[in-house]
Amino acid sequence: MSDNRPIGVFDSGIGGITVLKALRKRLPHENLVYLGDMARLPYGTKSAETVTAYSLQTTKHLLTHDVKMIVIACNTASSVALEPLKKALAPLPVIGVIEPGAEAAVAASKTGHIAVLATEATVRVGAYVRAIHKLAPKAHVLQEPCGLFVTLAEEGWISGDVVEATARRYLAPIFKRKASPDTIVLGCTHFPVLARTIRKVAGPGVKLVDSAETTARAVEAALKAKSLEAKRKTSGKTKFLATDSAERFARVGGIFFGETIRPKDVEIVDLQFG
Amino acid sequence: MSDNRPIGVFDSGIGGITVLKALRKRLPHENLVYLGDMARLPYGTKSAETVTAYSLQTTKHLLTHDVKMIVIACNTASSVALEPLKKALAPLPVIGVIEPGAEAAVAASKTGHIAVLATEATVRVGAYVRAIHKLAPKAHVLQEPCGLFVTLAEEGWISGDVVEATARRYLAPIFKRKASPDTIVLGCTHFPVLARTIRKVAGPGVKLVDSAETTARAVEAALKAKSLEAKRKTSGKTKFLATDSAERFARVGGIFFGETIRPKDVEIVDLQFG
Repeated sequence: MSDNRPIGVFDSGIGGITVLKALRKRLPHENLVYLGDMARLPYGTKSAETVTAYSLQTTKHLLTHDVKMIVIACNTASSVALEPLKKALAPLPVIGVIEPGAEAAVAASKTGHIAVLATEATVRVGAYVRAIHKLAPKAHVLQEPCGLFVTLAEEGWISGDVVEATARRYLAPIFKRKASPDTIVLGCTHFPVLARTIRKVAGPGVKLVDSAETTARAVEAALKAKSLEAKRKTSGKTKFLATDSAERFARVGGIFFGETIRPKDVEIVDLQFG
Repeated sequence: MSDNRPIGVFDSGIGGITVLKALRKRLPHENLVYLGDMARLPYGTKSAETVTAYSLQTTKHLLTHDVKMIVIACNTASSVALEPLKKALAPLPVIGVIEPGAEAAVAASKTGHIAVLATEATVRVGAYVRAIHKLAPKAHVLQEPCGLFVTLAEEGWISGDVVEATARRYLAPIFKRKASPDTIVLGCTHFPVLARTIRKVAGPGVKLVDSAETTARAVEAALKAKSLEAKRKTSGKTKFLATDSAERFARVGGIFFGETIRPKDVEIVDLQFG
């Protein structure tokens, strides 16, 4: 048995491409369809109701591509819309990035002091705090909303004065306490491109984890458990869809993907006015 | 004759409140309805087609409030959607912020060297360059897209290290030339709250202008010309509408308005899923 239908991956924009990249590396035979909701990004400053409505609409479009699974490659959408999506799409498997990210954090931390850098929306619902405490009830978890990191990543300003000053400002309240965290969760798919600067500001003793790698592993496990794997020998294909701004998607998305994306590789889809 | 119907004002989010404030100051007897499209902000990184579609939808909602005039309190939407809106809404008067901003710049500049700081979308269509050249054909106009300023203003980071480093980075290419501008146009309604820092980085000889004051004057003139003025003695009322995030609108909007806005003063309206 082999299932060559694609895996549907979505994000508010470009950040989720860090997860897409990990999926492609771990599951090279799978076909992937990535949809970035560029027309309405960012999700991280918006309400749970709005993000859930957008996520349902985005997923509905992915269903028209006959996907066998949905990966929510966005921490904000995973935080607020995982359960509504699971309910709406059952029995289709839906995987978010929060639980895999929490797992990575708990595995990395020796002291149990963990800091979560995320969007305003993710922090507000405390999704990482809950997920980490489920795995490690005694863990000490701090959260910090880091909205500006999203724009910095989207602008491609991934190093230099501005990113450093921003990181210092966000990390100051976390490291001014007596018991500093030994692990930082990059709780937004945009943040891995800023990892070098965040690491520099946090100092050498602190481990940085993100959800990309562990999410790819969770997807692999779910495909196996449900016999949904593509078992052929050839490489899978990756299809890019966006609700706006093909040029911007290609230009900045390439930074996240680590490979060139051309504007003509990005198909524009209309979710709102269709 | 007196017309007490409200003036409809819209923006992608909160920035347009700088224009609203100027309108309220200049036209205290007018009723105002402000709609911030918080569910889809920012507009400045999105395509002309998408911004135009959003602007048409936003305006359509304002018509349900029986408005007598539309003010586009957003440079991006004014840049790309003024003509489509005028056409769609005729004979209702529609006023954008670009021409008033250009007028302010030309009046302020002695050397004719003008720099425009704006969003990516406004810069792309060159709306200010055209509007300034219409008034002063020999003016030398530079443009710089300053996307990060929008997020800084939205986050309420209006002074400090990060804003200064960002301003230095954006202004460097403008001031490295031999003939530096003597006037900077704050070509996005978010930027006036960052004026102090921008002025500090630009240096003492440079004048900063924005569209708020001149737009209010243009609105006053249009009301007179069409006999649409509210001529009563009592103060007008201001109504706040937003498509998402009443709490954020109130919190950050207050910074722009210079007065407290309470979340319960902000009515949430749904333009997308109605």
